Amino acid sequence: MPDLVAGNAVIGQSGGPTAVINQSLAGVIEGLRAGLAASGKVGRIFGMRHGVRGLIKPSTDGLLDLTALDRAKLEAIARAPSAALGSTRDKPDEAYCEKILDSCRRNDIRYFFYIGGNDSADTCRIVSEKASTSSYELRCFHVPKTIDNDLVENDHTPGFPSAARYVALALMGDGLDNASLGGIKINVIMGRNAGFLTAAAALARGDVALGSAPQDRAAPHLIYLPEVPFSTDAFLADVEAVYAKLGRCQIAVSEGIRDAHGEEIGPKLMRWPGEVDAHGNVQLSGSGALGDGLADLVKTQLTPKGGKAPRVRADTFGYIQRCWPEPSPVDRGEARAVGRYAAELAASGDASASVIIVRTSNAPDAYRSDCARAELAAVARRTRHVPPEFISGTNDVSAAFHAYCRPLVGELPKFERL
Amino acid sequence: MPDLVAGNAVIGQSGGPTAVINQSLAGVIEGLRAGLAASGKVGRIFGMRHGVRGLIKPSTDGLLDLTALDRAKLEAIARAPSAALGSTRDKPDEAYCEKILDSCRRNDIRYFFYIGGNDSADTCRIVSEKASTSSYELRCFHVPKTIDNDLVENDHTPGFPSAARYVALALMGDGLDNASLGGIKINVIMGRNAGFLTAAAALARGDVALGSAPQDRAAPHLIYLPEVPFSTDAFLADVEAVYAKLGRCQIAVSEGIRDAHGEEIGPKLMRWPGEVDAHGNVQLSGSGALGDGLADLVKTQLTPKGGKAPRVRADTFGYIQRCWPEPSPVDRGEARAVGRYAAELAASGDASASVIIVRTSNAPDAYRSDCARAELAAVARRTRHVPPEFISGTNDVSAAFHAYCRPLVGELPKFERL
Repeated sequence: MPDLVAGNAVIGQSGGPTAVINQSLAGVIEGLRAGLAASGKVGRIFGMRHGVRGLIKPSTDGLLDLTALDRAKLEAIARAPSAALGSTRDKPDEAYCEKILDSCRRNDIRYFFYIGGNDSADTCRIVSEKASTSSYELRCFHVPKTIDNDLVENDHTPGFPSAARYVALALMGDGLDNASLGGIKINVIMGRNAGFLTAAAALARGDVALGSAPQDRAAPHLIYLPEVPFSTDAFLADVEAVYAKLGRCQIAVSEGIRDAHGEEIGPKLMRWPGEVDAHGNVQLSGSGALGDGLADLVKTQLTPKGGKAPRVRADTFGYIQRCWPEPSPVDRGEARAVGRYAAELAASGDASASVIIVRTSNAPDAYRSDCARAELAAVARRTRHVPPEFISGTNDVSAAFHAYCRPLVGELPKFERL
Repeated sequence: MPDLVAGNAVIGQSGGPTAVINQSLAGVIEGLRAGLAASGKVGRIFGMRHGVRGLIKPSTDGLLDLTALDRAKLEAIARAPSAALGSTRDKPDEAYCEKILDSCRRNDIRYFFYIGGNDSADTCRIVSEKASTSSYELRCFHVPKTIDNDLVENDHTPGFPSAARYVALALMGDGLDNASLGGIKINVIMGRNAGFLTAAAALARGDVALGSAPQDRAAPHLIYLPEVPFSTDAFLADVEAVYAKLGRCQIAVSEGIRDAHGEEIGPKLMRWPGEVDAHGNVQLSGSGALGDGLADLVKTQLTPKGGKAPRVRADTFGYIQRCWPEPSPVDRGEARAVGRYAAELAASGDASASVIIVRTSNAPDAYRSDCARAELAAVARRTRHVPPEFISGTNDVSAAFHAYCRPLVGELPKFERL
């Protein structure tokens, strides 16, 4: 082991929770115990209550001492969905990061681990730079987490496979429901900027070939991602083509769909103004407005042959898609591994890094991944989008996406239809 | 075996699908094969395409011959959620039932099985009476199904345990999500007239004692059923009490909550008129309007001490709660059993009946149930409500409800919190 600075470690969780974010927390703790703590370089292991918001408190109320946390209890916490330490939506700027650094000095913290998305990577980056400038030795590690799967450098991110599993299972059940009663069913799925989670709806098709005309596809018949400009006219034509042939149509649509000018469709369809969050974004998750607006559009604009108005229903997939308590087994293992790997990087003498996931085998039934490191600046504040090769036309994903996503979500049931 | 009329049998599925309605279909088929078909009294087994709507078609397009359906395929269909034969919302009147009887005559149908709720029981009752009046020998059996759990005579109904399992798991994950970010979370759950499914939210608490003050309860802190008059003032006071103490509040509310005059709250909070269905009811499921309306109410009316507006989010649990493809094991078994039992009643010479579920043991870890029969008229068109002994005060369920519901949903995960 290299000659490392001795002090305490702190771990925090940030942003929207996932079903496996506590696996990463357990991974960091277990990695520290096996390495830096065992060798005496780390004395105490703190948890931040509600992320950096807890860390910057002048008192120590915002820190939880996890050093002696019982192993069985740690396992029970690791299995629980959502951030056990509490999370925060705070997105620290330079001044905020100064306070983080002050707290690290006060609490003799020398190892800083932050589990979150690209904002959390940026927090790590700023804090690391400030520490370096002020000659305070602080090692900063970002541990990836987001159901949106929008971190660059990563094959995919912990949290995404479990959310994708939920979406696939939900679309399976919902597709059979739609088949039994007919009509048009719209499902609005999380992901404002990146459409990976909405794309996962395609897994509900099982092994059915992709890419044919919408009315010849297995359900879901139509998939709309924020990466593809959304036109209400094209949408209505798509729905009509499917409905005319099948008497039904199942649709998966991202909450973040945009028109050709990059303007979000959701707020345009809302009949009253939505809430605006601290980042200036209109609040879409947890509001039925986009789904209800699209349903209204279909009800009022679609005039099927025969004249009878179709049955139209919309569901907005809420917070449950990110915290459903039965995660993907692959995700559970990888979320644990990225946490452990961050602690191992610290023990190896690394000064700062973002842990990334690399896929090492995608052979059928032999999916494998490894952890690796990237510079914080390479991940911080950047957003990965669904790449063109994962998209098919204007309303579907490609076979390449299916091959990419399928191994991540674990076993899916197979059903027969009459 | 008694001296029975020989002919064909028909099976149909009606109303909102469930996760296990195809187990009942398989149960009837397997019961017929073991009894009436084996003894030569039933020649062909038909399935109705989209319920009675398929049966009354002048052509035979609306009938599917299931006589020779392969056993392995039947099992794969049984495992699939939602109505494999297709369902219908048609609620037959006297004239419609005349057409049903005509079709039975045309197709030499002597055994009629209908899987559905109290409307389906009523269809069986009318058809049975008409057949009797016109001296056409037709045996009519109603097989229970509804996630609403609102059939009288039954301890509970197939479909409910699986939907209750979904709600319990969803509230578990959502409760931890709410704990990690704080604020007020509203979850709108299906059940317009009966609050059983909303009540099942309480199972998310695990084995924590019920009935204490809202702010001292494990999440969900507040549960509102259609059986208890809803007052927006009392609601706001309840939410404020929980939020003031905990900085958060998780709420489960039925889509069908009503004020003291029996008027539904949902339509009153809607900012634009909702759709009205064929039965004259405003369409609530699949619309985010009630949840968004309640969230608006809290945002605009609640002024917590300190002055900062709380984070308020609402999710409306959609169709997924009735068709989630991982059902309760108890439900799977019972849904199969009620189907089989209907075929056995027919083989025993019974002329008409509604199959009911009776609980025979509720001892810890030794839950048992049996099938029994009731008269069609005893079940038809009646609605069971959550009884007073299952309700605690104005915003919770009782320990008796917990004891009633817990054995039905199967194993639930246990999580630790920091």
